[in-house]
Amino acid sequence: MNYQKILDEIYAEIQPELSYGKVADYIPALAEVEKKQFAMTLTLPDGTMYSVGDSQKRFSIQSISKVFTFTLALQLYSKELYNRVGVEPSGNAFNSLVQLEYENGIPRNPFINAGAIAITDSLISHYKDEYKTLEVIMQFIRDISCNPILSFDQIVAKSEMEYGDRNLALARLMKSFGNFENDVPKTVMMYCKHCAITMNTEELSRAMMFLAFGGTDPISKKTFISSSKAKRINAVMLTCGHYDASGEFAYHVGLPAKSGVGGGIVATVPGTMSIAVWSPALNKYGNSHAGTIALEKFTTKTGLSIF
Amino acid sequence: MNYQKILDEIYAEIQPELSYGKVADYIPALAEVEKKQFAMTLTLPDGTMYSVGDSQKRFSIQSISKVFTFTLALQLYSKELYNRVGVEPSGNAFNSLVQLEYENGIPRNPFINAGAIAITDSLISHYKDEYKTLEVIMQFIRDISCNPILSFDQIVAKSEMEYGDRNLALARLMKSFGNFENDVPKTVMMYCKHCAITMNTEELSRAMMFLAFGGTDPISKKTFISSSKAKRINAVMLTCGHYDASGEFAYHVGLPAKSGVGGGIVATVPGTMSIAVWSPALNKYGNSHAGTIALEKFTTKTGLSIF
Amino acid sequence: MNYQKILDEIYAEIQPELSYGKVADYIPALAEVEKKQFAMTLTLPDGTMYSVGDSQKRFSIQSISKVFTFTLALQLYSKELYNRVGVEPSGNAFNSLVQLEYENGIPRNPFINAGAIAITDSLISHYKDEYKTLEVIMQFIRDISCNPILSFDQIVAKSEMEYGDRNLALARLMKSFGNFENDVPKTVMMYCKHCAITMNTEELSRAMMFLAFGGTDPISKKTFISSSKAKRINAVMLTCGHYDASGEFAYHVGLPAKSGVGGGIVATVPGTMSIAVWSPALNKYGNSHAGTIALEKFTTKTGLSIF
Amino acid sequence: MNYQKILDEIYAEIQPELSYGKVADYIPALAEVEKKQFAMTLTLPDGTMYSVGDSQKRFSIQSISKVFTFTLALQLYSKELYNRVGVEPSGNAFNSLVQLEYENGIPRNPFINAGAIAITDSLISHYKDEYKTLEVIMQFIRDISCNPILSFDQIVAKSEMEYGDRNLALARLMKSFGNFENDVPKTVMMYCKHCAITMNTEELSRAMMFLAFGGTDPISKKTFISSSKAKRINAVMLTCGHYDASGEFAYHVGLPAKSGVGGGIVATVPGTMSIAVWSPALNKYGNSHAGTIALEKFTTKTGLSIF
Repeated sequence: MNYQKILDEIYAEIQPELSYGKVADYIPALAEVEKKQFAMTLTLPDGTMYSVGDSQKRFSIQSISKVFTFTLALQLYSKELYNRVGVEPSGNAFNSLVQLEYENGIPRNPFINAGAIAITDSLISHYKDEYKTLEVIMQFIRDISCNPILSFDQIVAKSEMEYGDRNLALARLMKSFGNFENDVPKTVMMYCKHCAITMNTEELSRAMMFLAFGGTDPISKKTFISSSKAKRINAVMLTCGHYDASGEFAYHVGLPAKSGVGGGIVATVPGTMSIAVWSPALNKYGNSHAGTIALEKFTTKTGLSIF
Repeated sequence: MNYQKILDEIYAEIQPELSYGKVADYIPALAEVEKKQFAMTLTLPDGTMYSVGDSQKRFSIQSISKVFTFTLALQLYSKELYNRVGVEPSGNAFNSLVQLEYENGIPRNPFINAGAIAITDSLISHYKDEYKTLEVIMQFIRDISCNPILSFDQIVAKSEMEYGDRNLALARLMKSFGNFENDVPKTVMMYCKHCAITMNTEELSRAMMFLAFGGTDPISKKTFISSSKAKRINAVMLTCGHYDASGEFAYHVGLPAKSGVGGGIVATVPGTMSIAVWSPALNKYGNSHAGTIALEKFTTKTGLSIF
Repeated sequence: MNYQKILDEIYAEIQPELSYGKVADYIPALAEVEKKQFAMTLTLPDGTMYSVGDSQKRFSIQSISKVFTFTLALQLYSKELYNRVGVEPSGNAFNSLVQLEYENGIPRNPFINAGAIAITDSLISHYKDEYKTLEVIMQFIRDISCNPILSFDQIVAKSEMEYGDRNLALARLMKSFGNFENDVPKTVMMYCKHCAITMNTEELSRAMMFLAFGGTDPISKKTFISSSKAKRINAVMLTCGHYDASGEFAYHVGLPAKSGVGGGIVATVPGTMSIAVWSPALNKYGNSHAGTIALEKFTTKTGLSIF
Repeated sequence: MNYQKILDEIYAEIQPELSYGKVADYIPALAEVEKKQFAMTLTLPDGTMYSVGDSQKRFSIQSISKVFTFTLALQLYSKELYNRVGVEPSGNAFNSLVQLEYENGIPRNPFINAGAIAITDSLISHYKDEYKTLEVIMQFIRDISCNPILSFDQIVAKSEMEYGDRNLALARLMKSFGNFENDVPKTVMMYCKHCAITMNTEELSRAMMFLAFGGTDPISKKTFISSSKAKRINAVMLTCGHYDASGEFAYHVGLPAKSGVGGGIVATVPGTMSIAVWSPALNKYGNSHAGTIALEKFTTKTGLSIF
């Protein structure tokens, strides 16, 4: 298939969509991002990469980082992790406390805020220290991307923490149910830091290759997680990767994927390729408006889908 | 792969599980079913079928019928259907009114009770008459199964209606929001009838072939729905097919599937095969206890999964 | 105190308020009522009555009838009634199903729709027949008002039933939890009929005298309920009489009272008088806009309040 | 009326009830309290006091302090306070976050935890400093009790803060909605401190006299709040004073009252007397089991009730 041609078509067709949606504005650092931007990259197992748009421009990966921390937690823990975080779609907004209260402080899945904070907490419990944990997370992301210079944006992390009352509320509520092990503000700070990692679509697409190929990066040949766990991570991306629009995404796009409020979306075509797309304006569910449409166009044009 | 051997292994391994769970007891007709039963059948595109257990014993397909009525509705309607029924996991019990009230009478998806009743209502609106609608549904199921004698159990349907207050409540609530077009009791009665269809695992597995193969039955070569709609039905099965345990099922099994409280589960391995399993005792989410485990064993043993 | 002067003042002051709010429009029969109407009547224990405005114009008493059916149920039942209906404010809209589902089909109090329907159901269970029940209700209202000609509006009752899907949903949901004893449509029809009783403020004020005076009408000297039960009915009026604005009403007015979507409100000053007010335009909680303000003015001007 | 005789009767009759219920155990400091204790005191406007039981034994007043902080806030603020805290019964548990999220961070009333924390926050905003605020609260309680030595229990306050995650979650959630002005941990600490005030039933009964008599203590002749505001505080006590059992309390007791998890309840008979009762074992709603029953016996025996 002529992937470059397909990406070029999508790029042309997506232009009118760049006017719609709204850049995340809950923190100043994200609100400043210029709205009409778009990039898309796909990576094949031989290392070939196809891109359109601003594919070298880094953005805040935000919730996409939750895929990486969940992977790290699955490396360390097995069944005991399910006592702390489920793998079920929530049917609620990503930052809602309602279900968390009804369900005794056990977050529905690792991709809503509460679940991701609980995962961060579980990592800190293992590595004993939040700085060590951050180091492990950063090293992991550098390893899977084969890119030693990736880092996070201190200003975004700090800004996120300043406006982080909802996340602190989620953590406190979990703690009140006994589902929290470390210091609340320090843990939430660490969560804000890994959400503030900046990557471009080339780097993100590259980083997802191990998940698109059963846990082993087909380019570096390094294994990061077992095949069965890689499948499970893909399953959670499919059912929970787009907050309360995950069903819609599965229906219209049909690929395991994870979005972030920075406007990025990563997707896998298991056994075939990994994809990253970025456009900062969000739809009402908090997912990239143009990014979602671009992926739908991609699966329609290529017939690629897991279904 | 030696599928018969795999099924035989599963059959042996599943025996201890048949003691667990509880047969549906909300209506007398279902409560009488003997608990320790099990059957599993898979059908390949060349028509080969592998079975273990009571694969010729018919049972009440219940919510599995929702896959078929949703398919019929997708044949008739396109975008206007989404105004009446969504495609999002609910995060709630299958018969809950809570979310339906909060979301103005629009059911989350076609596989929870409210959604399936709305789908039945949309079919009656098109076919003008509930008997004609039932005839169309029955004929469709006979066509996809290549089996002209399939029918439904009058006693189960009647019993379901007698204890059908919750379903009537869901329908009335939708009507109060303007999301209901036909007579409430007649529509719910029709819903009860298609839920009372009886099939065995061989018949069910056969009936799902068109969905496992992009809308066209590879054996009869008949096309029942477009490839893109077939993919979407599979997507909804994956995200919503097991009520509020759909995420768990995707995580542990990794196949699009739909369960019914009669103890049946159908699953597709897109492009490869369709599977039906039956064991009447249910887990706490209302899905077949042994059936779920059998499918997990199957994907573990075969490596088949969409992820 | 010069009550006539106070009523005249209120009448003058309330005029600008008659432009605000919205007449109930969920059924055509109520939507047609002319908005800018106002009446207020108070009755003293010696039989003296003071009125302003259209105090002889009848209107649909709607939920005010729930006070009378609750009184009848308390005559018949004691503790067993609390197993079916509570006496707790709901914190939810008057026709919400959410709490009813969470609380297993037991309505919070007899003044939200579900509770009042359950009360009607309990009356039908006692009187064995819905027509006999309606006769008893009508006779009771004629007795407490010393007015043999009171009746209900057939057109309003029928219209209410036609648009009664929400009430039918509430009844079905209660039935699904085993908290319903009689035929659902017939019971809801009976509920619609007693809601459609028409009275004017003079009649309503008169009818409430027994509740303002410990169960015994000080004018006719007839006892309709024990003193302790009369107090309890007043308590429920205070905590639950204005739907989800009952706290506000207690705070600003400070009297036990019950409102209806026809725009009527009845209130008691225990041991002193009963009051009825009417103005059909409703505030966002479904209570008479001008009626609520008139009562607040009345307690401010007179210092009458239970607190 | 021979109040001493009535109290003595209640004391005798209440003995078997002291075995029921459960002492608050969410913090160690409260869990240690001996269960089978009981005290009751009533104060008349001439200063006469009648008591039974351990009426000089101090206990943690906990949520009863919310009456006093609400009074202070009403002294300082008028309508703007209603933008921050409502006066509506919640229909939910006292520490629930569900409704607070649905209602955009505005607590339903000043007597659930979120509301009381918001009130404390509003006091700190006025007094600029949390220590100054605590001083004002303590001075107010000493003034209304004519008792200069009242204080709070540092151990209880500290313990409450250690187990205070739920309260911190409530505060953070309010802050995330912009309904919080001061430092979260410092404000919640201040809240814990005023909840940890210790008083006995004699002191509490004395302290409530100004609220039983329209804002002016009839013994000291000091006015603490306007008559209309005093009525309103009584109204909120009636509709919201017993968490999600306020309707039950109004129904069975019929007096404005406020309970605390330390086992205390204060009640007013407006214009007649104030009452305090204490027994540490709580019913399932978190209100004193024996205390509630004692008050019901009191109003039954005396006929005192606001209805």
